[in-house]
Amino acid sequence: MTRADVASAAGVSTAVVSYTLNNGPKNVAPATRERVLEAVRTLGYRPNATARALRLGSTGQVGLVVATVSNPYFGQLTDQVERSAAARGLALLVRTNSGGLVREAIEQLAARQVDGMLIARPMDANDAAAVAESGVPAVLINEASGPAGVPSVGVDRYGGARRAVEHLIEHGHHRVGLIGAGDGGHRQRGWADALAGAGLPPGPVVAETYSREGGYRAVLQLLALPDPPTAVFASSDEQAVGALLALHESEVPVPGGMAVIAFDGSAASAFTWPPLTAVAQPMEMMVERALDRLLGLEQNVLPTELPSTELLPTELLRRRSCGC
Amino acid sequence: MTRADVASAAGVSTAVVSYTLNNGPKNVAPATRERVLEAVRTLGYRPNATARALRLGSTGQVGLVVATVSNPYFGQLTDQVERSAAARGLALLVRTNSGGLVREAIEQLAARQVDGMLIARPMDANDAAAVAESGVPAVLINEASGPAGVPSVGVDRYGGARRAVEHLIEHGHHRVGLIGAGDGGHRQRGWADALAGAGLPPGPVVAETYSREGGYRAVLQLLALPDPPTAVFASSDEQAVGALLALHESEVPVPGGMAVIAFDGSAASAFTWPPLTAVAQPMEMMVERALDRLLGLEQNVLPTELPSTELLPTELLRRRSCGC
Repeated sequence: MTRADVASAAGVSTAVVSYTLNNGPKNVAPATRERVLEAVRTLGYRPNATARALRLGSTGQVGLVVATVSNPYFGQLTDQVERSAAARGLALLVRTNSGGLVREAIEQLAARQVDGMLIARPMDANDAAAVAESGVPAVLINEASGPAGVPSVGVDRYGGARRAVEHLIEHGHHRVGLIGAGDGGHRQRGWADALAGAGLPPGPVVAETYSREGGYRAVLQLLALPDPPTAVFASSDEQAVGALLALHESEVPVPGGMAVIAFDGSAASAFTWPPLTAVAQPMEMMVERALDRLLGLEQNVLPTELPSTELLPTELLRRRSCGC
Repeated sequence: MTRADVASAAGVSTAVVSYTLNNGPKNVAPATRERVLEAVRTLGYRPNATARALRLGSTGQVGLVVATVSNPYFGQLTDQVERSAAARGLALLVRTNSGGLVREAIEQLAARQVDGMLIARPMDANDAAAVAESGVPAVLINEASGPAGVPSVGVDRYGGARRAVEHLIEHGHHRVGLIGAGDGGHRQRGWADALAGAGLPPGPVVAETYSREGGYRAVLQLLALPDPPTAVFASSDEQAVGALLALHESEVPVPGGMAVIAFDGSAASAFTWPPLTAVAQPMEMMVERALDRLLGLEQNVLPTELPSTELLPTELLRRRSCGC
């Protein structure tokens, strides 16, 4: 039973069968899509089960595309992928490219004959096309959603940020600032909705890079305001680490003078002074789910029956920087 | 002009020519070795120039073997290799394997067709044999020395540690403890010689893992002594970060109650509280030198004329934790 049989039964090209089953990269008209799925059901076609069973174990290696590993969060994520892959008998090849294009990394990794790829960088439609052309299955990781045709396993950043800011409000804070990318993303919306939900005005937003230096500069900006916030939500551990240094140097006690909560919860956040209360990402679960998807452990389920995006819940780790 | 010509002129097998030119992996009797080198000189044979010119650029990729990238030092090292390789038009493939054997990582990376490999893990003779069998040139990095046949580019850990402890003595400290692996390695010897050089007794040594948790436990041990040291040298940034947390929790002011100097000088050491005075490793220079070696940029020089080990100097970054 081949893709050609399905195409013939549905009266479409084999490419249209692929687009339908992979949810992309090109769109398929709803009526055509229904015809293809009907043919798949009638014929009992299990595309990925076959293809993946052939691939799985043929090289014994999976690949990971990541921008940088000097950021401790991504270093930890990379090590987690290696451990989880090893537990499944697979070795890991990592392709870092902070400066280069994602699609180049995908093409080069695919040429190294891996069974599948995890991609921990934001992807666009061009990148999805590179995945489709490579013939190597790929799963987007650490992102809330990706382009059509690429399943993703991410984290509920909105819910995590909202819960963290609600926690600061429970500690009595009425002015809670945000250090973030300033792009109105999930974390910023969670922060804004927590304040709005408590009837509080949005605190100041400082747009900065997701780095220690960014967090450091952001706090200096906040402290220069006529009426600085009494608490701040940092969109990454790295920003929070930089924020703490700026607060220490400015002799603002933490949490007494300014409370801080970070997003990420990497190992480094437990060893700052004071230790950071943080929204912890479920890194191990995220990696395990992504590998399940990648290796087709759900191979008895049609791709179209799986959600294209899976969002995992975060956990608030209460340490000292929030006032607990 | 081939290796066979050299072998014939010297009256040895081609294997012996390889062992001589690569300084291993097997030993060659001094007299035989001289005969081979005489033949090489007479015939003007340039072995690696040819082999490397053939390889260089044929895949456009170099490999890196590293144990783990969640340690910020190795994360930063990995990113530096990627940047330096990219500047030479080469992409980087990383093979992490914290649990596995180095020789497995070497074999798997070599099978992925890379132009050469940097290896940032301690190597033994078996690993050197794996390199020789793979046919892919390799350079050991971040280690003071390696097995015969594998050139290495490392850092003068002894000199760096000695200078750091001398600096603590200049600040008036007479009891300087050591947090290290307790294996009498280069850093421990530098620490001991600095104290001996000033006529001071060796302070307490706490043997711990090179981790934040290790540094944390070590300081609790030091503080429990009847007469704790007034300063401590931590053998890694990670240990120093853990040490700072233990000192803060014990309400021992830094540097007033205990001064701290760390070895590594990764980016994280600048953002602790107080910022860490640290022995900085010349990471970029180390990576550039290792890539020069790997890619045969010294191809007009015979391998036997190059030192098999290159040690680069460190720099003492003076921040606040030492008392400066």
